[in-house]
Amino acid sequence: MPNIALLPGDGIGPEVAVSAVAVLNAVADDLTFEEHPAGGAAIDLHGTALTDEALAAVKASDAVLLGALGGPKWDTNEPGAVRPEQGLFKLRAELGLYANLRPIRPLPALYDASPLKRELIEGVDMLIVRELTGGLYYGERGTKDGRAFDTMVYTVAEIERIARAGFNAAKSRVTSVDKANVLDTSRLWREVVTRIHADEFPNIELEHILVDAAAMKLIAAPRHFEVIVTENMFGDILSDEASMLTGSLGMLPTASLGGTGPSLFEPVHGSAPDITGKGIANPIGMILSGALLLRHGLGREAQAAAVESAVDKALEKGIRTGDLGGTATTAEVTEAVLKELT
Amino acid sequence: MPNIALLPGDGIGPEVAVSAVAVLNAVADDLTFEEHPAGGAAIDLHGTALTDEALAAVKASDAVLLGALGGPKWDTNEPGAVRPEQGLFKLRAELGLYANLRPIRPLPALYDASPLKRELIEGVDMLIVRELTGGLYYGERGTKDGRAFDTMVYTVAEIERIARAGFNAAKSRVTSVDKANVLDTSRLWREVVTRIHADEFPNIELEHILVDAAAMKLIAAPRHFEVIVTENMFGDILSDEASMLTGSLGMLPTASLGGTGPSLFEPVHGSAPDITGKGIANPIGMILSGALLLRHGLGREAQAAAVESAVDKALEKGIRTGDLGGTATTAEVTEAVLKELT
Ligand SMILES: [Mg+2]
Ligand SMILES: [Mg+2]
Repeated sequence: MPNIALLPGDGIGPEVAVSAVAVLNAVADDLTFEEHPAGGAAIDLHGTALTDEALAAVKASDAVLLGALGGPKWDTNEPGAVRPEQGLFKLRAELGLYANLRPIRPLPALYDASPLKRELIEGVDMLIVRELTGGLYYGERGTKDGRAFDTMVYTVAEIERIARAGFNAAKSRVTSVDKANVLDTSRLWREVVTRIHADEFPNIELEHILVDAAAMKLIAAPRHFEVIVTENMFGDILSDEASMLTGSLGMLPTASLGGTGPSLFEPVHGSAPDITGKGIANPIGMILSGALLLRHGLGREAQAAAVESAVDKALEKGIRTGDLGGTATTAEVTEAVLKELT
Repeated sequence: MPNIALLPGDGIGPEVAVSAVAVLNAVADDLTFEEHPAGGAAIDLHGTALTDEALAAVKASDAVLLGALGGPKWDTNEPGAVRPEQGLFKLRAELGLYANLRPIRPLPALYDASPLKRELIEGVDMLIVRELTGGLYYGERGTKDGRAFDTMVYTVAEIERIARAGFNAAKSRVTSVDKANVLDTSRLWREVVTRIHADEFPNIELEHILVDAAAMKLIAAPRHFEVIVTENMFGDILSDEASMLTGSLGMLPTASLGGTGPSLFEPVHGSAPDITGKGIANPIGMILSGALLLRHGLGREAQAAAVESAVDKALEKGIRTGDLGGTATTAEVTEAVLKELT
């Protein structure tokens, strides 16, 4: 009886959360959902973006499904003010979420939305595993006397755990991205990834590629990649670049894996205040986040694949919300996906 | 009477250098060329990749045109051995080449070679101005006790000069790329670029964009960009990503601008030992490097544009070397370009 902590959040978050729960319940009959306010919704109720009670419940759960946080109501420039995003930062820190997974799987029905030619996009199905709590974004930094610096730092232990996250997610090949011809952190990265591969994952193929070459190959030959594992900033740049292969960030899910506790699953899109409450939000990103929860949070590959396949088929039959040029409602898209599951 | 230092270098370098000189002489009748061995050619003659005499002559020139350096003959793993690339490193250091310019202008006749859909590529004409001697690639680094670090460092003076290089190359808009929501170097970068803009280039439009968003927009809307100015590593990644929009690195030219001395112009392609001496190398990258020399080295925009337009027209009429699936020789392509100039 896996226990899912559901944090619908703000804006369209609660609307698309309903869709994801319906789809998850249709594909798995043993899930329980426990809902908690987060972000602006929690600020309104409790004056904080995530209460200690909610955090304790999240920590005790098997996986966390998050909608979206924030909105104009809580926008403020006041330093020290309570902000919706603090809920997410608190979750990341408290759950030790060090690996961000961004699957790039252009949906067949939407191939034409890609900036790339169809023959390059067909069959692309890659996963970018980005280190999320180290590297250039977390090292020492400062500015003094007209000179600024930032530090990229990695320890062996940090690289070992993200390497394992990458190999564990791969069926046949991992591409490790670094800049080992220049950077010391990249040379350590390559050394550790190579050792973890030899010691623990000898049956997976491993290749190393420089970050600038990776940025080229993502466009020139995206089908080449299965799992990419890389440093925080490289992953930030490459995952956004790769996302664009699908044509839009609008329907992409993402997973953040933790240490010992539950992992976090959420759509890449935001709270979309302009369409909130109208029942017309596209629920696909949230439904696909549910699929990631099944795959990476509960280890249920077959159920995850069933959800993804149902989404593909529903779209193949032509249903589209407004962001895709259609007129379907959130509920209609959800129904269409549910129909493909039964 | 501008004096051009010509360093044909190795492999196909001398073959394509002949083409570029012919085209430059056809479009400008007042250039003098002084040739010097560099790279492997200089090692064979003098035991060093760039002699002091050649360096002195280069420093006294108005602009430097380089073919390609290196080849299997001089490949070695011996530490301390003389290597062809040392010629280039010496040139960069001695000339203080702190700005690398990579124009991205897909050639109309080759639009179909792009991974992107034609309607996105049509009319793309951008210039990436990359800081080349600072940032993450040149800061302090080290590895100790299972922990490695690299440092990204910038000073106000370094940012000021690269910002000026960017604004000077722009007709109407500069896009400055940073990660100012996270990095101290980026916040200093944004501050200095904003000040140089306000004080010295108020008639050019300036926009700031984060590096991950830039990686997306380069694919989704490449026509948006005119001049991009950015940090060394960001520029390394983004310029290679953007190059791929043209379908191949094979015909791209690049310029490296110096402080007070001459600037350096060269094709992005290498010395291509497999086809050396056969007279079938594609000379377009080198000819377009000559166009950059006219534009950025001598300030002759009209002559530069004439060369680029002649290349477009020659390709439009169908002439292709083997790398593009054709059978034309280096000399035939050169003739075809020359014909469009007269
Ligand atoms: Mg990003
Ligand atoms: Mg590069």
